[in-house]
Amino acid sequence: MEKRGTFKASAAALRTRNPIRELIEGLDLRSHPNKQVIPLSIGDPTIFGNLRAADVVNEAVVDAVRSGRANGYPPAVGTEVAREAVAKAANTAIEEAARVARRLSSRHTSGGPTPDKPRNGTHRDWAQTAFTSAAHYEKRDVILASGASHALDLCFSALLDPEDNVLLPSLSFPLYETICAYLGAEVRRYPLDPERGWQATGLEPGGATDRLVDERTVCIVVNNPMNPTGSVYERKHLQDIVEFAERHRLVILADEIYGGMVFHRRHADGSGPVGPLDAPPIGCLARNVPVLTVDGLAKRFLVPGWRMGWILIHDPTPDQQFSVIRRALEGLSMKILGPNSLVQAALPVILSKTSREWYEHVRTTLARQAQFAYEKLSSIRGLHVPSPPHGAMYVLVCLRNNHMSGLEFVQRLMAEESVLVLPGECFGAPPGYFRVTFCAPIDKLSEAFSRIANFCDRHLRAA
Amino acid sequence: MEKRGTFKASAAALRTRNPIRELIEGLDLRSHPNKQVIPLSIGDPTIFGNLRAADVVNEAVVDAVRSGRANGYPPAVGTEVAREAVAKAANTAIEEAARVARRLSSRHTSGGPTPDKPRNGTHRDWAQTAFTSAAHYEKRDVILASGASHALDLCFSALLDPEDNVLLPSLSFPLYETICAYLGAEVRRYPLDPERGWQATGLEPGGATDRLVDERTVCIVVNNPMNPTGSVYERKHLQDIVEFAERHRLVILADEIYGGMVFHRRHADGSGPVGPLDAPPIGCLARNVPVLTVDGLAKRFLVPGWRMGWILIHDPTPDQQFSVIRRALEGLSMKILGPNSLVQAALPVILSKTSREWYEHVRTTLARQAQFAYEKLSSIRGLHVPSPPHGAMYVLVCLRNNHMSGLEFVQRLMAEESVLVLPGECFGAPPGYFRVTFCAPIDKLSEAFSRIANFCDRHLRAA
Ligand SMILES: Cc1ncc(COP(=O)(O)O)c(C=O)c1O
Ligand SMILES: Cc1ncc(COP(=O)(O)O)c(C=O)c1O
Repeated sequence: MEKRGTFKASAAALRTRNPIRELIEGLDLRSHPNKQVIPLSIGDPTIFGNLRAADVVNEAVVDAVRSGRANGYPPAVGTEVAREAVAKAANTAIEEAARVARRLSSRHTSGGPTPDKPRNGTHRDWAQTAFTSAAHYEKRDVILASGASHALDLCFSALLDPEDNVLLPSLSFPLYETICAYLGAEVRRYPLDPERGWQATGLEPGGATDRLVDERTVCIVVNNPMNPTGSVYERKHLQDIVEFAERHRLVILADEIYGGMVFHRRHADGSGPVGPLDAPPIGCLARNVPVLTVDGLAKRFLVPGWRMGWILIHDPTPDQQFSVIRRALEGLSMKILGPNSLVQAALPVILSKTSREWYEHVRTTLARQAQFAYEKLSSIRGLHVPSPPHGAMYVLVCLRNNHMSGLEFVQRLMAEESVLVLPGECFGAPPGYFRVTFCAPIDKLSEAFSRIANFCDRHLRAA
Repeated sequence: MEKRGTFKASAAALRTRNPIRELIEGLDLRSHPNKQVIPLSIGDPTIFGNLRAADVVNEAVVDAVRSGRANGYPPAVGTEVAREAVAKAANTAIEEAARVARRLSSRHTSGGPTPDKPRNGTHRDWAQTAFTSAAHYEKRDVILASGASHALDLCFSALLDPEDNVLLPSLSFPLYETICAYLGAEVRRYPLDPERGWQATGLEPGGATDRLVDERTVCIVVNNPMNPTGSVYERKHLQDIVEFAERHRLVILADEIYGGMVFHRRHADGSGPVGPLDAPPIGCLARNVPVLTVDGLAKRFLVPGWRMGWILIHDPTPDQQFSVIRRALEGLSMKILGPNSLVQAALPVILSKTSREWYEHVRTTLARQAQFAYEKLSSIRGLHVPSPPHGAMYVLVCLRNNHMSGLEFVQRLMAEESVLVLPGECFGAPPGYFRVTFCAPIDKLSEAFSRIANFCDRHLRAA
């Protein structure tokens, strides 16, 4: 038979949209002709050149190329050696987190310097006890993917049937929603408290988050450290989320791509730093529900373009109830195979030989820029930073008396001051927020913030 | 509310299976304890070390690493520079194909040496006229992907809604079916003629392939050169397929990952080579239907692990009817972003600086191995090679009087002779076929074929 008509695209493809791109494309983002653009928009730490991959990381890839032995197809889930290296690194991170917790706990009980109190004055009990990890990873628990994005795609695809629903933070990295839309799954947003480190609220029985759950709720996404807020959930709060998930038997999908990019605790007045935060990987706290942790090289190693990510599978359920999902992930990984073989070959060196000094250098650089951004932005009349950033590369800023939407602010700021930030709307925020990436060096940030201050002086003071 | 029960995986994930893996896992593939395994199974040209990536290709990646300027996020569809390079290379390949056609056509009309006749004696009209290309690519027509596999995933996902159907060759690379199963689309197999170069049959109105089409048929997949048969469709046959697609307004999905890996024409007795085949990219023949061509570095450049593939979009329809699919592909590419940034940065050098000598070396090496495989396998009693391989890296062999399935043959050959080949069942073949990869050097192939001959002597002679 013959067929006429035009060519069509699939409905699933047509509903696959990237909110950042769509919102940005809808804006007129012409910059001021006489001012050089300062891009504080995308989450790419490499664009200013102040943060560069470690030499050992680069040379590991060069060695892989020159060996001529890393050009073939790796298994779909990744080479055994690379997966082993990831498992080992994940276990090391957990041990370090446990060490931090022990140190804080002994300091606390032995009456050492008390950590700062949160602004609302209730005393934190984060350091009361140390913990033993519920998770220990073997290579079979690791699936390599083409970036954390692909890892997320695999996880959501393995878990979600059309019309299932997922709990996402009320503000989040837009890709979660993009993938869920593709899959025909429903997104339900759980509320966060901007003034208390953007923590999840209403987790208690009958609370606002608790009431979102029904029999089609499959998982809860926790992104720690968090994009777009720069917030870091500490152990006590992570424990609350785990309990919530356990009560509802939800899979925890933990996006820890910014894991390790956590700054030190400061005093409430911003002075410090006074010591590490107690922010372990959430996987090691879950004893009754499975956790899929997504991570990768992109941010911590400053190589987002290399597209190396992975999934860690933690299934503490007594009868390995999660093995069907393990199989599903393995099946899905065969569709496109995993990441670049050269980076796979380099992975063991990258993960084990990057020096502690290099990490510390990146971390203190980012911490300094974060603190600078927080102080400067907080001091601009018309702006309010609800919670200081404690990790990742972002701070979320609120327009006081928001008579201007985030979108309008972004467009006009670009037109008048050539500073590019992202509107909160990209992340599902209510109108009146914008996100600043603080990867730029201090001098660039400084210039950007004075331009923002000028802009606010002109437009926001009256309000 | 609270929820009990076990954790489930999505139905789509559970139906995502890789036939090769499932069939192979179902077999007991222990090798003979005293014989070293010769793997002629997977399509990875790198495993024997006789075929190696060009130095210029490796050094282009080293340069990208050392520049420190290729670590950031490229756009989801790939960098402009890399896409431009791909478009240019595709246009060059078309020009070369047109040149071959012109040469053959003038030779034909000027009474030069007549090409060999096919075995059934009908005279080919392939070289009667040259052609002008219907396709010319710009960078906007190129979408980079993480391997041809990802490119295929993007194409099928952009085109197919659940319950749509797709025409696949009756034998094919298993990933097509894997992806279609994931998407809930139906696969319909069009017949091939094993004795006539595995050409598609029944394309004429009312023919067997023609009758497969209904209003839910979206596209026809053409894989040229072809896996698992090593066959190469020439222009005349490609033209028939294009006409078929135009009659039914089907999108052509052209998998040309083995493009350029085409050997020269030989005389019917195997002597020669006598000159190039007239096998242009199918895209340049389509004037009324869109063609999505999938290609990549994996095979031609001997770097399958690098995961660099792409889609070429050719839309000759007068009113750009395909623009919705272009948008769909762009949308889908944002889910996981494209290939590794280092390989993207190296791509212009890889595509333009790899020497003609290097290509010729690989091509003649493969052609020699192909010819050797064809001759040796054809001469083994009990085996029959319906059509000689003219390209790619494979030859499909038939067990005469097949009292043994492909699966049984593969398992027993491995147990007794430690030679690993793949059962035709992996590719949708009827029982009694197996696929041999001829990437191994002649001495390895020779050893493998004498082992196969011994095996056949023991088991197939009686038949
Ligand atoms: C929270 C979060 N998850 C995942 C990703 C994606 O990481 P990748 O580049 O490894 O795909 C990003 C990138 O910005 C992110 O912010
Ligand atoms: C016909 C065909 N298409 C596509 C692919 C996948 O190529 P890539 O490794 O670039 O994903 C293969 C690999 O064997 C193949 O044989």
